[in-house]
Amino acid sequence: MSGKKINEITVLAPATVANVVCGFDILGFALDGLFDKMLIRKTSKKGVTIINKDDYNLPTQPSKNVIGAALLALLKAVPEEIGFIVESTKIIKPGSGIGSSAASAAGAVVGANHLLNNRFTKEQLVEFALCGEEVASGSKHADNIAPCIYGGITLIRSASPLDIIQIPSPKLYVTILHPQIEVKTSDAREILKKQILLKDAIIQWGNIAGLIAGLMKSDYDLIGRSLMDVIVEPVRSILIPHFDEVKTKSMAAGALGGGISGSGPSVFFLSKNEKTAKTVEKVITDVYKNIGINFHTHITTISKQGVKFI
Amino acid sequence: MSGKKINEITVLAPATVANVVCGFDILGFALDGLFDKMLIRKTSKKGVTIINKDDYNLPTQPSKNVIGAALLALLKAVPEEIGFIVESTKIIKPGSGIGSSAASAAGAVVGANHLLNNRFTKEQLVEFALCGEEVASGSKHADNIAPCIYGGITLIRSASPLDIIQIPSPKLYVTILHPQIEVKTSDAREILKKQILLKDAIIQWGNIAGLIAGLMKSDYDLIGRSLMDVIVEPVRSILIPHFDEVKTKSMAAGALGGGISGSGPSVFFLSKNEKTAKTVEKVITDVYKNIGINFHTHITTISKQGVKFI
Repeated sequence: MSGKKINEITVLAPATVANVVCGFDILGFALDGLFDKMLIRKTSKKGVTIINKDDYNLPTQPSKNVIGAALLALLKAVPEEIGFIVESTKIIKPGSGIGSSAASAAGAVVGANHLLNNRFTKEQLVEFALCGEEVASGSKHADNIAPCIYGGITLIRSASPLDIIQIPSPKLYVTILHPQIEVKTSDAREILKKQILLKDAIIQWGNIAGLIAGLMKSDYDLIGRSLMDVIVEPVRSILIPHFDEVKTKSMAAGALGGGISGSGPSVFFLSKNEKTAKTVEKVITDVYKNIGINFHTHITTISKQGVKFI
Repeated sequence: MSGKKINEITVLAPATVANVVCGFDILGFALDGLFDKMLIRKTSKKGVTIINKDDYNLPTQPSKNVIGAALLALLKAVPEEIGFIVESTKIIKPGSGIGSSAASAAGAVVGANHLLNNRFTKEQLVEFALCGEEVASGSKHADNIAPCIYGGITLIRSASPLDIIQIPSPKLYVTILHPQIEVKTSDAREILKKQILLKDAIIQWGNIAGLIAGLMKSDYDLIGRSLMDVIVEPVRSILIPHFDEVKTKSMAAGALGGGISGSGPSVFFLSKNEKTAKTVEKVITDVYKNIGINFHTHITTISKQGVKFI
């Protein structure tokens, strides 16, 4: 794609699920069919201009905007006197727990990089996008950013120095429940204990090791057995209405496993096939339609691709 | 092998490395060429008789002997009025940290199972052998037993219920240092903190996830980057004289990584090829030959096979 002079591009940046039950802060995957849209234009005027084409009233001051902060970080590594104008159409609702801010940050830097003849590596793009993520959540967590840029399932083996590993996986269907309530990432982080029992940590790292092995062996049973979280879910799930009932019924309906997406409020379940994913959607809907909280559900798959161009 | 009536068999049970740096209590592998030898005879007399053919003066009372306790557990699941006589020749020194007790327990039950026409699954054999391991270390840890029975690298995804996963790996050379000092498993366990920081646990489960991915992708660099332990090694390594110097020099000599084998005192390093493994052996020898502690070194590979019959 290099060499061709283009000054404008439209990107689709996917929603992502972080943590993935037993992979707190290290694992994430990209979702198919749930995208933010951004038109990115390279200009000869320095700096970043954000134009919101949606109703979320996000700040447009670049340093306070996820897209802006990510692009300002990228521009620091660009010697030319250039800037970007971004028209952002967010479809992934901010605060939904499926990587809305990561999609903005990742989509912007991948698009900008394309307009700069792909001079930066994916890893560099993650570093830039992290500066956007920081604006949204107060911390530089790459577990949404990485799958949004790389696609598929990604492991953050190490956050510092950044070490991103792509994990192959068999076809997996994802049922998403998005209760329309607010769970702030910073609050969800605040309620976690700073110290945990070694014996619980051993259970957790047995499960994350099992999950990686299950994904790489395409062993659905092992994936299912490994999708257990004895550390974060017991604390955070109280923030999500009827979590236990939703989970118990989804598992009974045949889901391999699932839990809180990122820091919530969205919840996800993995299934081996579309039929099961639909049954899971039905049982979740049956729980939620009676409790007086607005909600959306989605059925999708893990996307092999990250940010796309159109 | 079933159907053939044999009443006597000789088994070779391999030494094993447990924990494998970032896989505390969940990971282990079998070593090639380091074996205990046992002659096992099925008798019509109930109970277990232990005959030691070595100089370690291990107890011969079955309930206090690793082989005895493992075979008594197995016999509880056998309706026939039978027993076993075992002539044990230990080559793996008890307390060396390379799975001496696991070799006794695993070798005995695998051999006995062969004489019973392989009526038990490998998983059942691990359960029986755990009763032997308990006699030696006071706890039922399967991280040496499992690779001794299954061969290769094994993951204990869950200890209860027991869930053993075989992890494929590329060819890996192992350099072992066995300082002739005593480190009791119970003491090594005692000095560990019961609580750990969540942020350290996240680093650890990033590394175990990376190690599993590295092994399954045959990615030596990733294996090396993942072989880090921020939880157990910093505490336990003080029990092993000159550990830091041995490790620093082994890494400088080209080892992918390494650390304490099980609860020590043995130390192991993984290398991509035999030449590097030999260089590592040389630098370790150079450190240890001047410090007044007797020691042995070995160069071997990860054995694909567990207990063997001869």
